[in-house]
Amino acid sequence: MRVFAKIRLPPIFPSCVNSLSNQEQSRPFLLRVRVYYEDTDALGVAYHATYLKFMERARTEWLRGLGYEQHSLRDRHGLGFIVRSLSLDYLKGARLDDLLEVSVALTRRGGASLDFEQELRRVSDGALCCRGLVKIACVAADTLKPSPLPQRLLAEIADVR
Amino acid sequence: MRVFAKIRLPPIFPSCVNSLSNQEQSRPFLLRVRVYYEDTDALGVAYHATYLKFMERARTEWLRGLGYEQHSLRDRHGLGFIVRSLSLDYLKGARLDDLLEVSVALTRRGGASLDFEQELRRVSDGALCCRGLVKIACVAADTLKPSPLPQRLLAEIADVR
Amino acid sequence: MRVFAKIRLPPIFPSCVNSLSNQEQSRPFLLRVRVYYEDTDALGVAYHATYLKFMERARTEWLRGLGYEQHSLRDRHGLGFIVRSLSLDYLKGARLDDLLEVSVALTRRGGASLDFEQELRRVSDGALCCRGLVKIACVAADTLKPSPLPQRLLAEIADVR
Amino acid sequence: MRVFAKIRLPPIFPSCVNSLSNQEQSRPFLLRVRVYYEDTDALGVAYHATYLKFMERARTEWLRGLGYEQHSLRDRHGLGFIVRSLSLDYLKGARLDDLLEVSVALTRRGGASLDFEQELRRVSDGALCCRGLVKIACVAADTLKPSPLPQRLLAEIADVR
Repeated sequence: MRVFAKIRLPPIFPSCVNSLSNQEQSRPFLLRVRVYYEDTDALGVAYHATYLKFMERARTEWLRGLGYEQHSLRDRHGLGFIVRSLSLDYLKGARLDDLLEVSVALTRRGGASLDFEQELRRVSDGALCCRGLVKIACVAADTLKPSPLPQRLLAEIADVR
Repeated sequence: MRVFAKIRLPPIFPSCVNSLSNQEQSRPFLLRVRVYYEDTDALGVAYHATYLKFMERARTEWLRGLGYEQHSLRDRHGLGFIVRSLSLDYLKGARLDDLLEVSVALTRRGGASLDFEQELRRVSDGALCCRGLVKIACVAADTLKPSPLPQRLLAEIADVR
Repeated sequence: MRVFAKIRLPPIFPSCVNSLSNQEQSRPFLLRVRVYYEDTDALGVAYHATYLKFMERARTEWLRGLGYEQHSLRDRHGLGFIVRSLSLDYLKGARLDDLLEVSVALTRRGGASLDFEQELRRVSDGALCCRGLVKIACVAADTLKPSPLPQRLLAEIADVR
Repeated sequence: MRVFAKIRLPPIFPSCVNSLSNQEQSRPFLLRVRVYYEDTDALGVAYHATYLKFMERARTEWLRGLGYEQHSLRDRHGLGFIVRSLSLDYLKGARLDDLLEVSVALTRRGGASLDFEQELRRVSDGALCCRGLVKIACVAADTLKPSPLPQRLLAEIADVR
């Protein structure tokens, strides 16, 4: 098992860090994700449904940054978030091992819904791979009927129209 | 967009860092992964095929730590790694939002194959969710026929039987 | 192994037939798909990215019905189809074991692109679960640059604007 | 929309029928599945975790043939089936558009568990792509603790040791 002694890594290995970028006032939330074999298809690029997963990972981490975890929303508040509609443009195929930065910008908040603009950019050259609008509804976890967003969450995002 | 000013995060937000742990001589390589909605199923736990993806992500990062990226192995060396066989025990279902630590321990190296022992543990309580043995073959990327491992990679892992 | 003698099934077991419906002149192409555990998430419904997979399965079978298999398009003609953009409305969550009917209606053909309208309906009650517009581009499989559709395919779909 | 008039298909289009084979006494249950882009990876073959999905689809249809749907097991009986362990050999990579036949042979039944042998064969040439042993546990859907199999199901499979 001494093989591991040969691996020389910096204290934090940037190429696989799924970190939250520094949150500056005017910039959207960013999450880094890596393209693995599981994400690719026989054309050698990320399968088109994969981008939806990456976008949801980023929204989930955005929400976690606001103090909400999806499982406690469901288990304690009986709430879930579901996608109501989405519109995506695929601009450049992400490839195996690409490191992508997924942005999350909240563009509208309703009483029981949130609209997001999201982009996926390749970190190495900044190429825009995919961008989209995603409309999310807050629902009761058991019935999936619309349900008001938690008051505290609404307060956190009060600055958004 | 000023909503983002309200998110107060530590410089590195540990709960979503997919970091490589510090590589001590006697410890296996570790990758942290998060369980998202995409990974769960209607029973509320991670779908059983998901663990295979997590294990491959960890092997891919282990390999990257040795200086090999899968896409350059394929594009420059004409090589790929495929799973020959695997054996898994599912011990505890990982749940939505769980942070898992996936280990990679190389237990045998052949001229064209590598055997790994891997475990998935929940970070919050150390619970062992899944463990397995995975046998990997190095193959020619075009024919998928067995092909010798790159010499430099073999040298890096020379300490393993 | 005599257990199997106890299974009494009709000659064709409708509930799991992924059949092509009868192709009447005025009706779109239809493919039936089943919702399995792999397709669901912890909210108990089909994960939103799953619908994209179902829609692509249906387009693939539509294409097969016209005499084109994706793998021969790639291997013999050097062509692939990629999604350029899509717009989806999620109307009702499909649940575990639901049998869905996915429609494929070609609404526009360009020299190197095809536009589709697609719907997913639950077979048991006809409920519309999801509908969308999907724009597909024909590309060279190696470079992913736009490439003209095969002449014979264009001839097959000449009736579409 | 008259394009569809040009598609000439046999009454049942065999290449995409997910049918249950005729259940003869000595033969295992069989389900046909198609390899789509979603199932492949950048090496051009089915991603290794995909085979687990195909195997589960087949077990689900085997169970449906015995009169049990997974969602009613969960909703009415409060039961679920989870994978306890599995062992797989990958023998030949299935490729895009391959039609596969997945077998289900029950080899052991316990009071709260079932063992299966499963194979995936390519229909075109009978090539064995993957075979495996899968141990399933019946659990309470809420706690995931072991729970006895339903009596009627046990009666249906009484011939198995």
